[in-house]
Amino acid sequence: MENCVFCKIARGEIPSYKIWEDDSYIAFLDQHPIQIGHTLLIPKKHSDYLFDLEQEEYMTILLHAKDLAHILKEKLHAERIGMAVEGFGVPHVHLHLVPINHGNELNPERATHPKQEELKKIADQILN
Amino acid sequence: MENCVFCKIARGEIPSYKIWEDDSYIAFLDQHPIQIGHTLLIPKKHSDYLFDLEQEEYMTILLHAKDLAHILKEKLHAERIGMAVEGFGVPHVHLHLVPINHGNELNPERATHPKQEELKKIADQILN
Repeated sequence: MENCVFCKIARGEIPSYKIWEDDSYIAFLDQHPIQIGHTLLIPKKHSDYLFDLEQEEYMTILLHAKDLAHILKEKLHAERIGMAVEGFGVPHVHLHLVPINHGNELNPERATHPKQEELKKIADQILN
Repeated sequence: MENCVFCKIARGEIPSYKIWEDDSYIAFLDQHPIQIGHTLLIPKKHSDYLFDLEQEEYMTILLHAKDLAHILKEKLHAERIGMAVEGFGVPHVHLHLVPINHGNELNPERATHPKQEELKKIADQILN
């Protein structure tokens, strides 16, 4: 969709700290992380609601989430990777993958506003 | 596991407001819902961490989550069903399926303490 922020990120029209991508999906750091390393995984094709995805697309994005969770957990030394899907902020399917070490950390009201260089450092830590 | 609360619910040793089950999975109302109709979906077999499940078990539980989300959305007239996986409260894999109508409702700190008869009423609404 022309004016969708996540479509623009998928097309590279808005810069992002990319963690992973293939032809159909892309994962990048959330600009307002609730925890360090908070990553968003989206389909490049615009859809609104996770549970309305076709069976194959639904399973594929969730299998990529599993692979990404292992990478994030290892690279960021997190106790667990939490997953959240809400969808009121941007109406383009996105899975929040959030490194967490204690209960109640998977809380949308914890949004922070790190500087770009801090996000870049985290992206580098995940990618290297 | 002998002393795991969710294993006990799966074995029927602790009562719950059951929404759905098959031989391997069970879904029931959270006793401390963050929203009305907040449901937990668990595998009956004890495992700790969602992303450590074998590929087939992981996909199966998430396909059940999709089916349940459609039922909850329809029966409770919710805008969306949010999904969250955290795992620090009870160390037995559980997916939170939460009817939400606005942003920031998928917040673990919103836990409420409804009476049993209120939970029963919600379970009846979902089941009928």
